[in-house]
Amino acid sequence: MSRIVSLDILTDCFRSLPGVGSKMAARLAMHVLKMPQEKVDAFAQAMLNAKSKVHHCPVCKNLTDEEVCTVCSDEKRDRSVICVVENPTDVIAIEKSKEYHGLYHVLHGTISPMEGIGPDDIYIKELVSRLEDGGVKEVILATNPDVEGDTTAIYISRLIKPLGVKTSRLAFGIPVGGDLEYTDELTLSMAIENRRDL
Amino acid sequence: MSRIVSLDILTDCFRSLPGVGSKMAARLAMHVLKMPQEKVDAFAQAMLNAKSKVHHCPVCKNLTDEEVCTVCSDEKRDRSVICVVENPTDVIAIEKSKEYHGLYHVLHGTISPMEGIGPDDIYIKELVSRLEDGGVKEVILATNPDVEGDTTAIYISRLIKPLGVKTSRLAFGIPVGGDLEYTDELTLSMAIENRRDL
Repeated sequence: MSRIVSLDILTDCFRSLPGVGSKMAARLAMHVLKMPQEKVDAFAQAMLNAKSKVHHCPVCKNLTDEEVCTVCSDEKRDRSVICVVENPTDVIAIEKSKEYHGLYHVLHGTISPMEGIGPDDIYIKELVSRLEDGGVKEVILATNPDVEGDTTAIYISRLIKPLGVKTSRLAFGIPVGGDLEYTDELTLSMAIENRRDL
Repeated sequence: MSRIVSLDILTDCFRSLPGVGSKMAARLAMHVLKMPQEKVDAFAQAMLNAKSKVHHCPVCKNLTDEEVCTVCSDEKRDRSVICVVENPTDVIAIEKSKEYHGLYHVLHGTISPMEGIGPDDIYIKELVSRLEDGGVKEVILATNPDVEGDTTAIYISRLIKPLGVKTSRLAFGIPVGGDLEYTDELTLSMAIENRRDL
């Protein structure tokens, strides 16, 4: 049997990535062999760099490789609103919509008793202390519309109620461009419940 | 806009891999951040190792990270047959079938006048010199059944005819488990042309 140890090790590394099957892993490993040396060096370095430099912003807990993240340090952002999200990828999604100009707070997870994740395991305390510092008028709870996301949103809204900060939740309904026929019942019932006057 | 330079660089690296789109690249880069430090180090090292250690076997031109590849150095293999393939991945496929116990010769490409690849650009000379060394009774031309693969097979078979080595080509026909109804005409006509007596 033909075996190439160092290629097999690299294939296993690719295989461990999410969404990469064994055929694709073999293909990617083979591709690395064909890449020019400087590209391979750059790729390996990019991996080590990202891992070592990227950390949680001390203010909003979003990922950053600067001291304070680019949103928190941007003087043009509206400092009276904080949008609370589960993960850094949610920040990217919201930024792409270009609709939001306030600050963020990344929880890095949701309250999930099933998985043993309590309020102290995610960045909720840090959110409260940001609010206690004053200046924030509204908190938008943009956790996902599922059991954990809803639970977390309700928990946080109750927790910060005494601070007198307005809380809101993202609107849930039929996606733009969506089709009534193919919308699941739960989304449809949410859309009917939250209907707006014209 | 939230930007994390070192994460973006890593995302671009993943994006440059075949079959990886921008969403998947972002997901993979994010996954690297979540991996334990030692796994990231091992991944980067595996990449550099594979690139630096893997080379073409001096005998059969297959990829190897040893001096001579494991097939060429295996005393149990039948040294009177050489199977000629286009790429190292073809060797892996044939080895998986466990049907073949001879040696290999990897061309690393096919003759393709359209892309300006001539006989001297792939390892054909090296095959001829292996045959001239003697001891080989049969050469199986296992290039792909397409225009370039066929051209290359015919070119090689004519080239080595004077050496008195028997040449053969893989059988082409309906794949095992295949369905006549869904077999393309060309494969079907090949299957009829190459029918066997029972």
